[in-house]
Amino acid sequence: MTQSMDRMKQQVAFIECLDRLKQVLRQNLVMDESRRENSAEHSWHIATMAMVLAEYAPQPVDLLRVVKMLLLHDVIEIEAGDTFCYDVVGNHDKEEREKRAADQLFGLLPVDLAAEFRVLWDEFEAGETIEAGFANALDRFQVLLQNFNSRGGTWRIHGIEKARVVQRMLPIKTGAPALWPVVEDYLAQACARGLLEE
Amino acid sequence: MTQSMDRMKQQVAFIECLDRLKQVLRQNLVMDESRRENSAEHSWHIATMAMVLAEYAPQPVDLLRVVKMLLLHDVIEIEAGDTFCYDVVGNHDKEEREKRAADQLFGLLPVDLAAEFRVLWDEFEAGETIEAGFANALDRFQVLLQNFNSRGGTWRIHGIEKARVVQRMLPIKTGAPALWPVVEDYLAQACARGLLEE
Repeated sequence: MTQSMDRMKQQVAFIECLDRLKQVLRQNLVMDESRRENSAEHSWHIATMAMVLAEYAPQPVDLLRVVKMLLLHDVIEIEAGDTFCYDVVGNHDKEEREKRAADQLFGLLPVDLAAEFRVLWDEFEAGETIEAGFANALDRFQVLLQNFNSRGGTWRIHGIEKARVVQRMLPIKTGAPALWPVVEDYLAQACARGLLEE
Repeated sequence: MTQSMDRMKQQVAFIECLDRLKQVLRQNLVMDESRRENSAEHSWHIATMAMVLAEYAPQPVDLLRVVKMLLLHDVIEIEAGDTFCYDVVGNHDKEEREKRAADQLFGLLPVDLAAEFRVLWDEFEAGETIEAGFANALDRFQVLLQNFNSRGGTWRIHGIEKARVVQRMLPIKTGAPALWPVVEDYLAQACARGLLEE
């Protein structure tokens, strides 16, 4: 096998493995409440949101970098599974599980791509750059929209009270501060309609 | 309502509408054959493929533009539905239906974003730029991988013969020519295994 065919086969093997993200179910529902959302369609939704909302980053962002992070941020769930954000026990070893999964999954790729993707995933997880802060804000904002539009979704199903949701939404305040009034408005409406406990 | 809040509400309404793409089912299956693939997760898959395979475009590409086209290319299906590529009748009025859907959906956005997204969608549909050619190639290549990895998928279910599949895959030959040997190899293997009729 030539080196270039070998490289291409590694890339195709990674792409074939990506298909499994379509089977990883998140806790939240799709908006018509017919089923739980999967992590692949969630990732599409937030990457497209980045195109729509780019102007609300606190400083001009490298949009390609934001979109790359959003497309990749959940890929590790193929091995590590989705951990519900309000699951205290599951979040104990989340970081360790996810790092092992990143080694394994990005390790399918040629070394240059593996390194690039790992840097992007680590940057998203750390949330310290403007791009990562904005990407994290969109990841939280999408869940707000999903829950609000599915009669409270996981807030209602798991009886989560408003203070915990506000805490969970805080990355929006720093990562996309212009969106914060929308968050406050939606949470107030959710409380008024009984979808979320005060 | 201030002008900026009005703008933000239009953007959020578009994002909420996007959720419906998760309910649009394509003909092809996910790789474990448990169900049909939806257009939202398909769009995530090909946008991520663009990150992995960018080097195989025939000339250096504006990757952000490619990814934007791929994230948006199926959004019109929210109104127009998915049209199976081998459905002769359905393809008669496809263009007209999809253009109406594009007017309607992108019309939810503020005019500047509506115009930008429409240009991207038209560019993808025309397939004439290097970016659009590469994006179209990935759209076809992903279906090849889905069908090959689901025991022939729609080829088997609908009894499609190899010559028609080759015809359907031709945009790969121009849009990402380096991938063509993989296409030929997969089709030959599919025939040898009886997943595709010669």
